[in-house]
Amino acid sequence: MPDFRGVYPAIITPMTPDGGVSEAAFREVMEFNIRSGVHGFWVAGGTGESILLTDEENNRIAEWAADQAQGRIKNIMHVGAPDTRRAVAMAEHAAKAGVDAVCCVPPFFYRPGDEGIAEHYRAVAAAADLPLFLYNLPGSTGVEITPDLMKRIQDTVPQLTGLKHSSPETHNIRVFSDMGLDCFTGSAYMMLPALTLGAAGCIDSSPQMAPDVWVEIWDAYHDGDLPRAERAQRRGAEITDFMIEFGNPSTPKAVLGERLGIDCGGPRLPLLPMTTEQRAECIRRAAEFGLASAVTAQSA
Amino acid sequence: MPDFRGVYPAIITPMTPDGGVSEAAFREVMEFNIRSGVHGFWVAGGTGESILLTDEENNRIAEWAADQAQGRIKNIMHVGAPDTRRAVAMAEHAAKAGVDAVCCVPPFFYRPGDEGIAEHYRAVAAAADLPLFLYNLPGSTGVEITPDLMKRIQDTVPQLTGLKHSSPETHNIRVFSDMGLDCFTGSAYMMLPALTLGAAGCIDSSPQMAPDVWVEIWDAYHDGDLPRAERAQRRGAEITDFMIEFGNPSTPKAVLGERLGIDCGGPRLPLLPMTTEQRAECIRRAAEFGLASAVTAQSA
Amino acid sequence: MPDFRGVYPAIITPMTPDGGVSEAAFREVMEFNIRSGVHGFWVAGGTGESILLTDEENNRIAEWAADQAQGRIKNIMHVGAPDTRRAVAMAEHAAKAGVDAVCCVPPFFYRPGDEGIAEHYRAVAAAADLPLFLYNLPGSTGVEITPDLMKRIQDTVPQLTGLKHSSPETHNIRVFSDMGLDCFTGSAYMMLPALTLGAAGCIDSSPQMAPDVWVEIWDAYHDGDLPRAERAQRRGAEITDFMIEFGNPSTPKAVLGERLGIDCGGPRLPLLPMTTEQRAECIRRAAEFGLASAVTAQSA
Amino acid sequence: MPDFRGVYPAIITPMTPDGGVSEAAFREVMEFNIRSGVHGFWVAGGTGESILLTDEENNRIAEWAADQAQGRIKNIMHVGAPDTRRAVAMAEHAAKAGVDAVCCVPPFFYRPGDEGIAEHYRAVAAAADLPLFLYNLPGSTGVEITPDLMKRIQDTVPQLTGLKHSSPETHNIRVFSDMGLDCFTGSAYMMLPALTLGAAGCIDSSPQMAPDVWVEIWDAYHDGDLPRAERAQRRGAEITDFMIEFGNPSTPKAVLGERLGIDCGGPRLPLLPMTTEQRAECIRRAAEFGLASAVTAQSA
Repeated sequence: MPDFRGVYPAIITPMTPDGGVSEAAFREVMEFNIRSGVHGFWVAGGTGESILLTDEENNRIAEWAADQAQGRIKNIMHVGAPDTRRAVAMAEHAAKAGVDAVCCVPPFFYRPGDEGIAEHYRAVAAAADLPLFLYNLPGSTGVEITPDLMKRIQDTVPQLTGLKHSSPETHNIRVFSDMGLDCFTGSAYMMLPALTLGAAGCIDSSPQMAPDVWVEIWDAYHDGDLPRAERAQRRGAEITDFMIEFGNPSTPKAVLGERLGIDCGGPRLPLLPMTTEQRAECIRRAAEFGLASAVTAQSA
Repeated sequence: MPDFRGVYPAIITPMTPDGGVSEAAFREVMEFNIRSGVHGFWVAGGTGESILLTDEENNRIAEWAADQAQGRIKNIMHVGAPDTRRAVAMAEHAAKAGVDAVCCVPPFFYRPGDEGIAEHYRAVAAAADLPLFLYNLPGSTGVEITPDLMKRIQDTVPQLTGLKHSSPETHNIRVFSDMGLDCFTGSAYMMLPALTLGAAGCIDSSPQMAPDVWVEIWDAYHDGDLPRAERAQRRGAEITDFMIEFGNPSTPKAVLGERLGIDCGGPRLPLLPMTTEQRAECIRRAAEFGLASAVTAQSA
Repeated sequence: MPDFRGVYPAIITPMTPDGGVSEAAFREVMEFNIRSGVHGFWVAGGTGESILLTDEENNRIAEWAADQAQGRIKNIMHVGAPDTRRAVAMAEHAAKAGVDAVCCVPPFFYRPGDEGIAEHYRAVAAAADLPLFLYNLPGSTGVEITPDLMKRIQDTVPQLTGLKHSSPETHNIRVFSDMGLDCFTGSAYMMLPALTLGAAGCIDSSPQMAPDVWVEIWDAYHDGDLPRAERAQRRGAEITDFMIEFGNPSTPKAVLGERLGIDCGGPRLPLLPMTTEQRAECIRRAAEFGLASAVTAQSA
Repeated sequence: MPDFRGVYPAIITPMTPDGGVSEAAFREVMEFNIRSGVHGFWVAGGTGESILLTDEENNRIAEWAADQAQGRIKNIMHVGAPDTRRAVAMAEHAAKAGVDAVCCVPPFFYRPGDEGIAEHYRAVAAAADLPLFLYNLPGSTGVEITPDLMKRIQDTVPQLTGLKHSSPETHNIRVFSDMGLDCFTGSAYMMLPALTLGAAGCIDSSPQMAPDVWVEIWDAYHDGDLPRAERAQRRGAEITDFMIEFGNPSTPKAVLGERLGIDCGGPRLPLLPMTTEQRAECIRRAAEFGLASAVTAQSA
């Protein structure tokens, strides 16, 4: 079973002017991040507007990601849906498309209890028969994956490999790591602190705008160079503050569009696009972080 | 603009043995309730497993409901989805199908803020151009529709007509009623108390098993016969306790199947079906309430 | 065991200019309410600034209330404290002072779990050996008294008689009533709805400013005159809206001071007093409700 | 202004057999920790049962702590109370007693809003005129001290120096540190992660049982020895798991009693004491961590 560790940007899903998903821009964003040294991607997750896409769009993104990777990085493909049948179908397709793992939020809207959640994950994992990552995202799903619930799922689902932990219960990173799981922090603010607790890495949106910053945290941590790691984490926090101020995924769409000279479109409704004024201010601010200047093919 | 008032069961979506939606059983359940005196239906809502159905299934249900009604009752069709585009398409279809109103939960999973919520409702309402009901269901969506947010939506959406209020903020029933809205309590326990605060009626699941009980609350209240209304409400509470013990929508599916001699199937995953033992016990308990005996065509 | 039913204002604790508790003003407020037909008082509770008073001040208030009552109404004296020893001592004193019952919030700040809560109540009730009322006030204590916890306390505490239910779980009023408890709603907005669910009455702050309004709800309900009860409840809601806008207990202190021609002082810190401008506006608004004009001895 | 940094155990308040506070045992626990290298104490805080003690008992503890310190460590004395007057009086006394700083939870039970909270802190800080630490403890107080509220307090209270941050909003440690505050994590699990975010140190209960472990985290972090820091943090987490299993402050009372050969008593009601069986099991488990063997004067 492959090893999932490091910086895994939660990649955006760029949109075309007519509101469809943009393969060309998706591949550009992915390539920029691969060349910047990231270790993998969290594909079509929350930032990737998964839940606002059709199943067919999600399926196509799995194909693009697998094809673009060419074995250089690992793709964890999100296949979550409120109903089990749709999640199962997307999991089957993702496996055929060639991703390295699947991931899935707990069933949302309906909250079927621990037994229903475990059964949902069992069905999804069996359909893909790939490493499975849970997505602990109580702010969107209303469900906290506690160590007890995790144990229940672990007993039910042999493919369970890890999770993205986007919960305030930070100290559970140690608990989940001790259960043998690859536990990624879901907070770009918390990569270094999480690594000291045994985290496998970081999955979040802001790193895709400046992947070198989080790769630097990872490298410096593994070199045992704490001051360098802390400097990089501080810079990462400032970039993440900026992203939160202007909104996700609007900010990485605008910034990467500018940086890579492509059109990433806006988010899909009900997420609101930036106004023209907001976008201009966003780009101006990104420039202060050195994120808005064009990246040439060579430098990228 | 038509008047929406009274007992509106949140009707189940019966399933066929192969897991599809069952038109025949749906019509039977609807007919039983119409003959028992209900004033309308909340169609393909939470109890109706809306979010677990395909858009095409939701669309077919709108057609069945409109056709079965024959003008005898009013249908409020749920068209909620996490993304605006899907909700808009279902709203357009619902209007063509001939329902009397549409309803919609706030966008869930993503929580786009007040402005995004208002914009979502504006688009949905414009697509149907029918009376619009909001669905205040914070336990599933994470969003409480406060009086302030309601005011904002009211200023944006001329079709806004009312809401199903499934929130613990009971006293807001008065506030919403004073805003000129048809405010239904979403709790079968609370029909009589809500009426004294100005509610338009009750929308919930348990009434479809015993519609005469809630119609009795409505009638007694309007006759000014408080003791009779309280007796009926107490009986309604006992039936609702029973339903919650065995689960929703599993319980009305089992009980109405037994009562009407039809097969309503189980819920769709990730909602778990009753075991055979649970179902037997559920029917035994329903019989104690007089809910399990067959209703003949005449009596119904 | 006496019967506790009806309108029980949560009486303010008037303060003297030097910040002490004012016996004279307390007796005036109590007398005005007794003459207006209330059935009892919730003494030195949340509105009465219990937790901001010294134990000795709480004890003196128990004495004043018992003496002023002269058997005309029933006093339920609050003896809550974060630690059991202080609550027990105040309960002992309250019994000696001659109140009719004691009441108590669950231990707050520390949250000792169900067993600790039950033990706390057992000790307090044994000390007073009077009817005991719980105070379900999760917004201040962080503890919801569920039916399960109530059952545990009922099994432990023979003096348990009822509760003030200041929780959004409105339908538990029926559950607690069915357990044989005198369950008062803690919301002045909800007196009529609560009565239809079996509530024993209403305990809240706003009724002390206009006790006739809530007495009218009570009387009309018992006369079976629903339209009259609803009119009174609507007026009560408007008065309560007004109180919430200007703050509790500042508003009843200002309004009753004006109405009865006495000085009730402001609240004790950290509750902030109204500014002079706020107080003037508060009195002006109270006048619109007919609450600011002097009540002569005769009319009161 | 002195510098507050490092390991600050939240020291227990030992009790005598008759339920009073035990000066002798308090001094022993303090001395053991001083000799183990801690940098200061959080005195009579949550773990110290502050809110269950009389004001006079709190005052005496301030005197013992100041006297025992002899300038070797720094004492931050808790002076929190629900009402401002009591907190102010304890703050005045603490300053006279010679502690190095005061600390205070936001007013609890009543929640007076941001303006009331700021005013409460202003009054307390002015009374002591010592460095002031806030205690962000939303699990007990219901109030989260956000960066916005902190800014408001900082603008109002010149003595504001830092805080104990016992909130899941871990990344605010960086924000508060950037505001110039000494921000201690309130979680013994999180000392190392918090240091990488700029925290001033750690304040919690479990460190007093094994102060060398957290001093090791501190020292290794400052030596830039990440593997050593992580090993110590892991050991600290295991000890904290153990404490949480058996309860706080019962566990440190039992373990330190055993370890130092003194009687620390149980907690004050409504906190429940361990049963004899629980205590025996607790000591047995402490022995597995090497925490139950007697510490001789020399080794300590």
